[in-house]
Amino acid sequence: MAQNIYDDPGFFAGYSQLPRQVRGLVGAPEWPAIRAMLPDVANKRAVDLGCGFGWAARWMREQGASAVLGLDLSHNMIARARSMTDDPGITYEIADLETLELPQASFDLAYSALAFHYVKDFDRLARTLHRALTPNGLLVFTIEHPTYMAAAHPRWLQDDDGRKTWPVNRYFIEGERRTDWYVKGVLKYHRTIGTTLTALISAGFALRHVEEFCPTPEQIAAMPELAEELERPMMLLASAQR
Amino acid sequence: MAQNIYDDPGFFAGYSQLPRQVRGLVGAPEWPAIRAMLPDVANKRAVDLGCGFGWAARWMREQGASAVLGLDLSHNMIARARSMTDDPGITYEIADLETLELPQASFDLAYSALAFHYVKDFDRLARTLHRALTPNGLLVFTIEHPTYMAAAHPRWLQDDDGRKTWPVNRYFIEGERRTDWYVKGVLKYHRTIGTTLTALISAGFALRHVEEFCPTPEQIAAMPELAEELERPMMLLASAQR
Repeated sequence: MAQNIYDDPGFFAGYSQLPRQVRGLVGAPEWPAIRAMLPDVANKRAVDLGCGFGWAARWMREQGASAVLGLDLSHNMIARARSMTDDPGITYEIADLETLELPQASFDLAYSALAFHYVKDFDRLARTLHRALTPNGLLVFTIEHPTYMAAAHPRWLQDDDGRKTWPVNRYFIEGERRTDWYVKGVLKYHRTIGTTLTALISAGFALRHVEEFCPTPEQIAAMPELAEELERPMMLLASAQR
Repeated sequence: MAQNIYDDPGFFAGYSQLPRQVRGLVGAPEWPAIRAMLPDVANKRAVDLGCGFGWAARWMREQGASAVLGLDLSHNMIARARSMTDDPGITYEIADLETLELPQASFDLAYSALAFHYVKDFDRLARTLHRALTPNGLLVFTIEHPTYMAAAHPRWLQDDDGRKTWPVNRYFIEGERRTDWYVKGVLKYHRTIGTTLTALISAGFALRHVEEFCPTPEQIAAMPELAEELERPMMLLASAQR
């Protein structure tokens, strides 16, 4: 079973204060880029893998999705998500993406934000999602970028000219990465870009879009601390079609 | 017109001594990975973009390709390539990939090794190659990896624990990069992975394979200096189908 940091009280208390949890989708600077990758969800059945507080699930219903299944490993998350809606078109369930089973051809859209880098066996998950999607169904997801995750000691360095610089090492040593984020030893799984995209292609997906999140000039003007995100890719955004 | 370092006498003298020029394809550690991406070339028409001394063109003919067109910007390269074969199935021509025109649906395979990162307008080239390939024809290419190319001062650093570390900065500032390689100010064009893959998808290609070159344990045993290539991705290898 995957590590469940989200049910650690210390983690959950800190995590709940993130702008993207307090403010929802508009608190995530990559949301406009994700939204541009999403299909029209009206009358579509969607599954959100790692749904957290359910912001995306509720948004999809507002956009006319016929049904949304929100899945998360964390009891805390699912309880909070359930407390935030009484919409009968949204179902929340506890699920582990390592062992997930989904009914065949039952979703038009599979969506996941910043969850797949906690999954050890991405090949299995890609095959599971391919089977669970209807023909031409779309998988849209974001992960931490492998360039961001790879290093043994990921943190900003200064280059000779004073420019913020991100260190890369161990890129081809895939597998466990431990970082401290509200709690010690948060467990993530590093995979190269080649490994992630090959898993999707091997599962039968056609890659439709690959993007690395970069803040817009308007976003940087509004939040100057985002400027450092021009220096290194922090998130990979992709869509793939069954 | 693209910068033509290869006709600089100092550059050419140094470059000609690289193992991959002296020994050919077996001198390039990424060649086994490229070869695994190539289709059976028997009776296929191929174009090699940035053919250099023609090692790949001659190999394709040995594998039964019906005709190979080798293109390079450099008079030096084309002259050397012509001097190395009298095979009537190989044609060498001087061409600039920035302004290249190719006849429609005239090649079953487009191949390019470490040339596209010298091209400023990759969107145009991707469209040109899509048109030039036959239906289901394959584009197989390698480029310097954007993680390798991005930084203002690309060179090995030491991490706190002594591990070789590669710096990344300016990742989302695409465009010109100048490095010193035999001569000063060699001009390359940095693009994110998202930009490169999106150019291919937008041109109509289906991505078939995306890989980042990583030496095998056997290669590292034979050439211990390759071990550092486990730390950072130096080359991106991709294949895409019309």
